[in-house]
Amino acid sequence: MTITRGLEGVVVTETRLSDVDGERGRLVIGGVPVEELAPQACFEDVLFLLWHDRFPTADEQHALHAALAAQRSLPAATVALLRAAALRRVPCMEALRMGVATLSATDPSAGTAAAAGLADAIGLVARFPTVVATYWRLRHGREPIAPDAELGHAANYLYMLSGTHPDVAAVRALETYLTTVIDHGMNASTFTARVIASTRSDMVSALVGAIGALKGPLHGGAPGPALDMVFEIQARAALSRRSIAEEAEEWIRAAVTGGARIMGFGHRVYKVRDPRAEVLAAAATRLFDGLTDARLYADARCVEEVVLRVLHELKPGRRLETNVEFYTALLLHGIGFESELFTPTFAIARAGGWTAHVLEQAAEDRLIRPAAAYVGERDRHCPTAATPAAPATPALECEAVMA
Amino acid sequence: MTITRGLEGVVVTETRLSDVDGERGRLVIGGVPVEELAPQACFEDVLFLLWHDRFPTADEQHALHAALAAQRSLPAATVALLRAAALRRVPCMEALRMGVATLSATDPSAGTAAAAGLADAIGLVARFPTVVATYWRLRHGREPIAPDAELGHAANYLYMLSGTHPDVAAVRALETYLTTVIDHGMNASTFTARVIASTRSDMVSALVGAIGALKGPLHGGAPGPALDMVFEIQARAALSRRSIAEEAEEWIRAAVTGGARIMGFGHRVYKVRDPRAEVLAAAATRLFDGLTDARLYADARCVEEVVLRVLHELKPGRRLETNVEFYTALLLHGIGFESELFTPTFAIARAGGWTAHVLEQAAEDRLIRPAAAYVGERDRHCPTAATPAAPATPALECEAVMA
Repeated sequence: MTITRGLEGVVVTETRLSDVDGERGRLVIGGVPVEELAPQACFEDVLFLLWHDRFPTADEQHALHAALAAQRSLPAATVALLRAAALRRVPCMEALRMGVATLSATDPSAGTAAAAGLADAIGLVARFPTVVATYWRLRHGREPIAPDAELGHAANYLYMLSGTHPDVAAVRALETYLTTVIDHGMNASTFTARVIASTRSDMVSALVGAIGALKGPLHGGAPGPALDMVFEIQARAALSRRSIAEEAEEWIRAAVTGGARIMGFGHRVYKVRDPRAEVLAAAATRLFDGLTDARLYADARCVEEVVLRVLHELKPGRRLETNVEFYTALLLHGIGFESELFTPTFAIARAGGWTAHVLEQAAEDRLIRPAAAYVGERDRHCPTAATPAAPATPALECEAVMA
Repeated sequence: MTITRGLEGVVVTETRLSDVDGERGRLVIGGVPVEELAPQACFEDVLFLLWHDRFPTADEQHALHAALAAQRSLPAATVALLRAAALRRVPCMEALRMGVATLSATDPSAGTAAAAGLADAIGLVARFPTVVATYWRLRHGREPIAPDAELGHAANYLYMLSGTHPDVAAVRALETYLTTVIDHGMNASTFTARVIASTRSDMVSALVGAIGALKGPLHGGAPGPALDMVFEIQARAALSRRSIAEEAEEWIRAAVTGGARIMGFGHRVYKVRDPRAEVLAAAATRLFDGLTDARLYADARCVEEVVLRVLHELKPGRRLETNVEFYTALLLHGIGFESELFTPTFAIARAGGWTAHVLEQAAEDRLIRPAAAYVGERDRHCPTAATPAAPATPALECEAVMA
């Protein structure tokens, strides 16, 4: 019996949503190369593209904008739960899982399954930023800010976090980020959403499962630490008064010699450059160009250059390009996000892909159920004494439990 | 490129937890055939068996009983959320997803990963019945009943539902049900839990995803309707004053001729009899033996006999045995459960298997990430007018979002 651990290389379904070509370093989203799509499209257009397999007309753009804006508020019980979670200071991704789990899917008997699915997709995508921003503010001792229906999806998210209307450059940078990572083949969270949807369960359940998978350090949990290296090198340089390049060289040589894993470089799927990294690098360059303090950008690019040179010198056979996490961290820091918001913001983007995959899976309507090879005991027997471990329960007459 | 839709026959991992032999109709749980294990073991012993790969000593039995009993209470915020959900009358499985999603996993940095995993397993398994019983009572306008630490897992669940100490026969019937369905190979909910755990996410997230999958009508959502046929035939017989057998014969012939799917018969994996069906049939026989009103049992067995005879006559090539859903419904009705509690009670049982699989997956530590075949467009381009759909945002100065 062949065991395909990790299901690597196993093709589980067809999709028209995105094409990840790891050999050639290409990514197509909804038929458009990510390099063309992400720098110019707004997030709502890409949602429409994934859900309907074409770009919207001007009327459809406005209708989708209005539909999303109308669905942003959270039920009072959800806010109360987030308030209680904030007192316990639960991590932001955990709060997102809690908050989204409280939502309810549309009753499918009210209309067609396709209409219900699309309504759920809109309702979920619309509320992800509200859950994150509401929780973020509560955890920092501030009251939540009501969504502003005049703002687009990305701009409103920034507004609900800060309470001030965001700069166009920051909004454009965030739109580019959200679009770049909106979908990426059959990754673990998307696959989770499809397995759940394959039982004909509801879209809320599928997305709650996906959040749980994205939360894992081997999946979406990674972008936070990518710039920690840069921060550490900055701190050392401030103390030693040596240059960033000198400190970076010393740091990376010690890290490689010590066998440490270098965050921000390399990817399981992409054997060459990750196309998303280039898109986000260009977006970061544009964003930091307009900032008075572009120090982080200059230092990060300096560290990157040194790390790549040293890695190529010390590990000549390996292709270790700067990956998407490094530029994600740079771009999101540039917008003003703290590291803990990176994975929740990734989830806000990926909700677009997840909902589209759930709709696609619903159309396929095939239960996903693999097999496992049993390697345990076969001839075990119940110990005779093992029967009632619990204290004996009084023998009253048997009655129906639920009157 | 071969597409293995539904992953049928794809072996994704090894497991020592259960062996589903669909060809021969055999099920081994933790090394013991289900026919031997389920009628005599108590649920806590089977939990220990799955978690530790051996039966507990007497001391370990008492320690596990105490550990589970100590973890049954719910946080106030969880109860408040369930109270709000009850006002909206959300379905019971949705409330279970909401309630479990509010829990938090152990901080793994506090000890070893294995100890944290086991603590989470105990905490989750302990709280599933409390979430279900609390919600059930709230939805029926009654106050929740605090768990009784003197009672075992199964007995305490019945107690929290009804408020009265349950009869030993009902407890024994429920222990048998919980043990029979505690684990069943790589089904969709168990697989969901493993995919989520494979990202090194936490056990709460894995189980919330699993609940979402179990909720689907193609998976755990099925046991409710299995006896509806019997109820309908009883109602017809009451009106027509004909016998159950006569009404059953007419009903099943009309259903087969009309192409209706007959609930309660047949299973995707088992080509012969489902061994769980026999175990639950025997448990139902024992339970109803002690009841003054065994009418449902007699009628259900009569309907079953007629349905099997007619199915074998009309579909001679097909092996359509009575499946586990039919006897689950019979047994759980006999204990006094309403149909809406069937799937949540299934979840209470399966939480044992899910936690064990998450522990097993954590030990394997391999990301599960299949592939998909792209079948969408390749040469789509962004429409030039598509750029900013949202109303223009005022261009304020760029500032950090999070002060």
